[in-house]
Amino acid sequence: MAAPRIVEVSPRDGLQNDPVPLAPAARAELCRRLAATGITLIEAVSFVSPRHVPAMAGAEEVVAELPELRDRTLSGLALNTRGYDRAVATGLRRVNLTIAVTESFSQRNQGCSRAEAEAVVAAVVPRARSGGVEVTVTLSVSFGCPFEGRVDPAQTLRLVERVAALDVDEIVLGDTIGVAVPATVKPLIAGAVGHGLPVGGHFHDTRNTAIANCLAALEAGATRLDAAAGGVGGCPFAPGATGNVATEDLVYVLHESGLDTGIDLDALIEAARWLGEQLGHPIPGALARAGGFPRGESTVAA
Amino acid sequence: MAAPRIVEVSPRDGLQNDPVPLAPAARAELCRRLAATGITLIEAVSFVSPRHVPAMAGAEEVVAELPELRDRTLSGLALNTRGYDRAVATGLRRVNLTIAVTESFSQRNQGCSRAEAEAVVAAVVPRARSGGVEVTVTLSVSFGCPFEGRVDPAQTLRLVERVAALDVDEIVLGDTIGVAVPATVKPLIAGAVGHGLPVGGHFHDTRNTAIANCLAALEAGATRLDAAAGGVGGCPFAPGATGNVATEDLVYVLHESGLDTGIDLDALIEAARWLGEQLGHPIPGALARAGGFPRGESTVAA
Repeated sequence: MAAPRIVEVSPRDGLQNDPVPLAPAARAELCRRLAATGITLIEAVSFVSPRHVPAMAGAEEVVAELPELRDRTLSGLALNTRGYDRAVATGLRRVNLTIAVTESFSQRNQGCSRAEAEAVVAAVVPRARSGGVEVTVTLSVSFGCPFEGRVDPAQTLRLVERVAALDVDEIVLGDTIGVAVPATVKPLIAGAVGHGLPVGGHFHDTRNTAIANCLAALEAGATRLDAAAGGVGGCPFAPGATGNVATEDLVYVLHESGLDTGIDLDALIEAARWLGEQLGHPIPGALARAGGFPRGESTVAA
Repeated sequence: MAAPRIVEVSPRDGLQNDPVPLAPAARAELCRRLAATGITLIEAVSFVSPRHVPAMAGAEEVVAELPELRDRTLSGLALNTRGYDRAVATGLRRVNLTIAVTESFSQRNQGCSRAEAEAVVAAVVPRARSGGVEVTVTLSVSFGCPFEGRVDPAQTLRLVERVAALDVDEIVLGDTIGVAVPATVKPLIAGAVGHGLPVGGHFHDTRNTAIANCLAALEAGATRLDAAAGGVGGCPFAPGATGNVATEDLVYVLHESGLDTGIDLDALIEAARWLGEQLGHPIPGALARAGGFPRGESTVAA
């Protein structure tokens, strides 16, 4: 089993709902610190309307602060062709689009129908191809939906098939509300991998299953795992409630499993703690509190 | 894969270091509420000196309050023959003894050498056999030690072999400081299972790996998993820091995996929340905050 690519999403998914907004300069500094740990891909910004998501205002400013990371390391989220145009105008070469698996979540979270979201992907891909831009599509609520409950795996896999046919570069299955378990992750990831393109997993740790789900996704053939430093991204109205799986927790389990991510765990823990200080409220990640594997006193004394 | 027996350890391991002591009557009420959820084995008390562990004072009072659970559902921890005698005198029919895998942890946590702890087991087992008492032995720091760091799996398995030869009823491998990952859990559990007696896992969620470790232990043949309602049992000086894996988090992942534990998850979440109210500080378990799988609005409306 090869180490996956870790995609850091704290600047975007981690912060978009946090009650404490961080200015563009602070979000750029977060990206710098994360990149310095060895992380090679960071979803840094969201090209949505600041009226809808105030915490993501200033996406252009964030990218403009990071010319050294812009071409290879940063990506941005777009929900429509206008967002795609804004992303490309900043010089980003990677864009993440999203489609909800359920109609209810699409309407309420994305403000459009699933068909409209699919049409956005279909419209963007040819332009991305000719512009040399990589397109990832994240399928939100792939395992369960806050409005519709359990999601039929066949429904998710039908959407995977349609999106794969649109010639995107990568598909990510998102457990947006943190309900999946390894027994449900493995068949869905394996089914998606069967379409022949790179597949990733995006797991929230809402029900304490995200680490197990990440390992299950890897076993099933996923090559990318999303994570957020500090485990930020939980519900803003439940302090300490867990959001995205914490990057440092994920890196710990991968390294202890013999999978080298190329990321410096100690530096990552420091970056997560720094993020917690900026937010001024507890962050849920475990490693930022507990630290790595104790070295033992004999080692310390040596 | 069969569902494991869930052994609830919140009244003992979960509360022994909590900064808020609960009176014996409250601990007895906790046991009643846990048993009412369908949990069939509860480590309810510790027969240690109240000078050393004040929160565990009044073990006899706790058991005396629970005559209906005493014979089948409750067990008690003992560290020496005096503790065993106290346990049997209360009418308990199940005792958990413990041996540390490292000498440093044995001396500092248990106040005796490993050889002395093994001698306690050797002395207790024949008396337990003639008295109809079941003996579980938990091997603490089976995966890592706060004082010695990484523990050689061969060292743990040599201790398993010696303890198995003492004719105990069950061995539990304890990840006391929460450092294990599935890649280290599977070979150790499988190695222990190879000795032909029932094997369990006792995982702390200090580094967010406990749910994955529980599933790995099951795959490797474990038939018992320890857990504590609310995930209590963390370091008392780090509020919100995770202790034992939360029973309700474990039951969630097992049920979603198609393994029926016989436990009522909603009732268990209520018991965990009740425990949190008694303690008056946040508890780390995820399900007590998030609830189970959302049923979806159509179901609610129906």
